[in-house]
Amino acid sequence: MTIENISSNKSFDGWHKQYQHQSRVLNCQMRFAIYLPPQASEQKVPVLYWLSGLTCTDENFMQKAGAMRIAAELGIAIVAPDTSPRGEEVADDPDASYDLGLGAGFYVNATQEPWREHYQMYDYVVSELPDLIEQHFPVNDSRAIAGHSMGGHGALTIGLRNCERYQSISAFSPIVNPINCPWGQQAFANYLGKNRDDWMQYDACELMKVASCDLPVMVDQGTSDNFVEEQLKPHALVEAAAVNDYPLILRMQEGYDHSYYFIASFIEDHLRFHAKHLK
Amino acid sequence: MTIENISSNKSFDGWHKQYQHQSRVLNCQMRFAIYLPPQASEQKVPVLYWLSGLTCTDENFMQKAGAMRIAAELGIAIVAPDTSPRGEEVADDPDASYDLGLGAGFYVNATQEPWREHYQMYDYVVSELPDLIEQHFPVNDSRAIAGHSMGGHGALTIGLRNCERYQSISAFSPIVNPINCPWGQQAFANYLGKNRDDWMQYDACELMKVASCDLPVMVDQGTSDNFVEEQLKPHALVEAAAVNDYPLILRMQEGYDHSYYFIASFIEDHLRFHAKHLK
Repeated sequence: MTIENISSNKSFDGWHKQYQHQSRVLNCQMRFAIYLPPQASEQKVPVLYWLSGLTCTDENFMQKAGAMRIAAELGIAIVAPDTSPRGEEVADDPDASYDLGLGAGFYVNATQEPWREHYQMYDYVVSELPDLIEQHFPVNDSRAIAGHSMGGHGALTIGLRNCERYQSISAFSPIVNPINCPWGQQAFANYLGKNRDDWMQYDACELMKVASCDLPVMVDQGTSDNFVEEQLKPHALVEAAAVNDYPLILRMQEGYDHSYYFIASFIEDHLRFHAKHLK
Repeated sequence: MTIENISSNKSFDGWHKQYQHQSRVLNCQMRFAIYLPPQASEQKVPVLYWLSGLTCTDENFMQKAGAMRIAAELGIAIVAPDTSPRGEEVADDPDASYDLGLGAGFYVNATQEPWREHYQMYDYVVSELPDLIEQHFPVNDSRAIAGHSMGGHGALTIGLRNCERYQSISAFSPIVNPINCPWGQQAFANYLGKNRDDWMQYDACELMKVASCDLPVMVDQGTSDNFVEEQLKPHALVEAAAVNDYPLILRMQEGYDHSYYFIASFIEDHLRFHAKHLK
């Protein structure tokens, strides 16, 4: 597995870098970003995987979240993959809508045409990308996972299904119950087909109800988020946690919206939360 | 002078807001952004004016610099204007190059056709915008000015020419000697005409040599900035300061480039520098 460096910027005494590589599971060329804190020049550091939301690339979080300052202090690397397979040959929504196809992979393994040839973001994030990162960079195998909106859904579902691979999970404004909201229903019907039984494995609420581990989970949700009622439904996650006595931390943040201004305001709390659990 | 709010985002317990208004001096509709720290809900706060570089709008600094966290702590408002007049009716470079015309106002008052009808950014930043801000927002008249690249040039020249209006100046990667670099020479020849005597009033080095005030000035310059030798020439400012015994703080930052990753890494130092001088 080879990777090609395409940009490097010194940042908080560490390095932000972008790479491209040919993904085996996605069957296309992909780009990712990594932040290596200054500690990584002398020792192996743990990694936070950040999954972005609809329409994003590897760049949004790295440019807007203000996370590198704290990662540099705590000695945590951050890896930000893209949000879908990419390229001319990759299927897209015929209407080029923002919530299906390119930029909207939903971190699932698609089983349906025309998506299944490339849309295997679950396997990419769970296996191929960490293997690549751990092969090429000075990181250890202590991992955390976090994300925003569609990426919050990705972080929760991937973390809950792979407790042994992560130390902690956090999310901003996650889609916690995709089987019961328009974004999730459209994506899952396209990528996974009409059988709703196949959707359950990618629904954070359903997974939390039956989770057999107790990986720490922290969620921040703004009360002025335009998507909170129709798409995000944070209280469904609270109810799911109650069913299974799951140790969920959900913080409703008064007046905050769905933007990166919200993420930037609380990313320090998230990194410190993960730092308590990472090795 | 009326202004229209076009966006609001809660950020670090304060508010990031965008406004549009009809500018009298620029003769077109303009947009600006303001960050109001939480202290502004109870008292008048000082203001840092941030001038962005080539191609930027009011958004780049607010989204990428990570400044609001510190502004919220220190109780400083931040105002970010656009980098040129805007609109269909505003003259632009026929080749639509990034370094002349739209997005490249260079913070001067143009005297030449076809620019002079709208390109009066100096007066806009020095007078019209502060008047508007002080009329509409809970701010006092204690002001600082800062910027990046072309905006660093703007901050230095506007600050040095208006010592009585500002408490302090800072810049990242500023164009300190535009009369002697390609970016400045192209812009000044177009906006100000061929008489180089008319350029001196907009050259930070020339102004620092004859400055009669000693407004605190801090400059950060990355050593790996691709533009440092041909366009930015930080050592020319050191020489100008020496001529006049001007109290310049210039910090060469090893390995940093021209990007917002550089700005984000040191913006905290700049805000704390200004906070020492603002009231």
